[in-house]
Amino acid sequence: RPVDKEVDFANYFCTYAYLYHQKEMLCDRVRMDAYHSAVFRNASHFQGKVVLDVGTGSGILAIWSAQAGARKVYAVEATNMAEHARDLARANGVSDIVEVIQGTVEDVELPEKVDVIISEWMGYFLLRESMFDSVICARDRWLKPDGVMYPSHARMWLAPIRTGLGDKKMEDFDIAMDDWSLFVQDTQTYYGVNMNALTKAYRAEHEKYYFKSSIWNNLHPNQVIGQPAVIKEIDCLTATVDEIREVRAQVTLPISMDARLSALAGWFDVHFRGSAQNPGAEEIELNTAPDDNGGTHWGQQVFLLTPPQKVTNGDNVNVSFSMVRSKENHRLMDMEFTYELHELSGRKHPAVTTKIYLE
Amino acid sequence: RPVDKEVDFANYFCTYAYLYHQKEMLCDRVRMDAYHSAVFRNASHFQGKVVLDVGTGSGILAIWSAQAGARKVYAVEATNMAEHARDLARANGVSDIVEVIQGTVEDVELPEKVDVIISEWMGYFLLRESMFDSVICARDRWLKPDGVMYPSHARMWLAPIRTGLGDKKMEDFDIAMDDWSLFVQDTQTYYGVNMNALTKAYRAEHEKYYFKSSIWNNLHPNQVIGQPAVIKEIDCLTATVDEIREVRAQVTLPISMDARLSALAGWFDVHFRGSAQNPGAEEIELNTAPDDNGGTHWGQQVFLLTPPQKVTNGDNVNVSFSMVRSKENHRLMDMEFTYELHELSGRKHPAVTTKIYLE
Ligand SMILES: Nc1ncnc2c1ncn2[C@@H]1O[C@H](CSCC[C@H](N)C(=O)O)[C@@H](O)[C@H]1O
Ligand SMILES: Nc1ncnc2c1ncn2[C@@H]1O[C@H](CSCC[C@H](N)C(=O)O)[C@@H](O)[C@H]1O
Repeated sequence: RPVDKEVDFANYFCTYAYLYHQKEMLCDRVRMDAYHSAVFRNASHFQGKVVLDVGTGSGILAIWSAQAGARKVYAVEATNMAEHARDLARANGVSDIVEVIQGTVEDVELPEKVDVIISEWMGYFLLRESMFDSVICARDRWLKPDGVMYPSHARMWLAPIRTGLGDKKMEDFDIAMDDWSLFVQDTQTYYGVNMNALTKAYRAEHEKYYFKSSIWNNLHPNQVIGQPAVIKEIDCLTATVDEIREVRAQVTLPISMDARLSALAGWFDVHFRGSAQNPGAEEIELNTAPDDNGGTHWGQQVFLLTPPQKVTNGDNVNVSFSMVRSKENHRLMDMEFTYELHELSGRKHPAVTTKIYLE
Repeated sequence: RPVDKEVDFANYFCTYAYLYHQKEMLCDRVRMDAYHSAVFRNASHFQGKVVLDVGTGSGILAIWSAQAGARKVYAVEATNMAEHARDLARANGVSDIVEVIQGTVEDVELPEKVDVIISEWMGYFLLRESMFDSVICARDRWLKPDGVMYPSHARMWLAPIRTGLGDKKMEDFDIAMDDWSLFVQDTQTYYGVNMNALTKAYRAEHEKYYFKSSIWNNLHPNQVIGQPAVIKEIDCLTATVDEIREVRAQVTLPISMDARLSALAGWFDVHFRGSAQNPGAEEIELNTAPDDNGGTHWGQQVFLLTPPQKVTNGDNVNVSFSMVRSKENHRLMDMEFTYELHELSGRKHPAVTTKIYLE
């Protein structure tokens, strides 16, 4: 089903039209440092080159590209933020190089092919927002055969963690259901209507909200209780939409301490390596893993396992994972986890399957 | 410009598909008491009659109508909540009378005309959500010539108030702007880009957010420092969309105490009177004015006046008010207030104009 563009604006693009939101990204030092280094430590990829910035937002990556010596930068932005990007380029003395074009990158026409595509397209758990589709489209339309992608590679990670978030959610859920019971009583008493027919649906709605929704959190590294695993690798130069529309993986997560396994966490990293033909001078990494120097605006995504399970150093958790796009909104994700604890002792717990929504 | 239906679902209807949200309305005792009384104390309007419930939600008004003796109730609901309404009607033994139809009322076909249209269509400050348009459409299509509307009348009110909300907003605004200054410095220092070109736009965005957005609040009656005025009256039996698309009023608000005039507040009431031909047995009122018995889920809408002004018992505030629908979303409102303080002493302050967005 093709995406209704106006709905997509109502649901998605609208937030990016606020400077408030752009600033949040511009204040993410981990993100900013990585892209800044990627551009300036690989200046030879930019000097005298033609660059396309997919989703320029405030224009920051386009301006850096110009400052690093690009001959021309096409900076494409769907929202009205484009105007601010234009102002910013002018105020920073690069308006002769940076050409801001308002429109979706799927629709724009450029007068030439480009040497570099730079873009900050990553959403929560890498693929939320499905913006990489737009980067693929831009690449296939406008990148020269020997062009390079910034970033060039991306990976999704999954790890076993401990967290109190589930306990808090359980409390809130119980309060919500107690409150519902009172409501059912009161509505019968005062208004003569028996609401009990909706109790099951109300419970299901709240279970989804409290337990089956991915939770944003910047975890501390000591909450990671076993070895993280890569569940998806993307080569930005060659990936197709078909390759990212669904993600499926089977991994074993070895537990490395005695703890309570209460959730899995997901995050991503991306690398800036240039291309095989045309490698960068220095490989730069942008990593959104748990980090005690403070996190990123992406945080990690916490997927609760209910009930939590006691685990021991040496146990293994086998996980099969699938992620597909939500039917109602292709920028949101429906995930399914099936996990199976294999104790070091040899005991195997029965497999448990849970759905989690990344909304 | 006609409304894109899918965008309307994305922006508006979606929230009503949650039982959580329906429950909020079902827990509003002022609202519930008024509709309950309206139906059961005017049972003769329902006995043996055909009723249309526009936007039945959980089905509550349809079920009451059936309990009050309706022969048939068509309960129309756009969202999937329709299914729950159907379950609820069944569980309450009225599924032979209540027929739930999922769809927008603009699109449904009924097999007969109706004697009564009941609907809870009121949004913040009465007209936010523009749902009364749908009631008008339903009325013109399906109400018999001698049919009655529940509610039958509605009014919008404006009053001069005192509140500390503006001071809090001012603090938050100052913090946001200080933070922006630091951000501009840091971005220059660490990333070589001068962000000052965006300062004006950032300030404007935040002024809109902090000072020009209507604020939801349940005010205490003693915050009302003068006489409220009716700025709009609607006869639900005869009103047309043209009559409500814009609201314009000129009112004088007499100040009745020495106080700081820091805002105007807006609210509404509706009445259930039946029709002139066919009056109800008892007139019922649903009033969302400030009330020390606790408020409604609508609260009142606070429109900040910046800067606040000292006023004295006997002063008058002349207000000219206009409200039009937002260009981007016909369910949201753009308001403009021009206010002029006439002191008891004879001194006239210059008129001040401010825009407020009801989003
Ligand atoms: N298909 C598309 N065409 C054009 N712009 C798009 C797009 N999909 C997303 N965007 C824009 O891409 C931006 C992603 S956020 C990144 C902004 C900026 N490059 C920075 O690094 O700070 C948003 O401003 C969004 O509106
Ligand atoms: N044009 C339209 N057609 C059908 N349903 C509509 C509609 N516009 C709004 N609605 C529905 O009207 C409801 C308004 S809220 C009121 C719900 C219920 N009557 C009660 O009093 O508790 C929402 O559920 C909304 O989805």
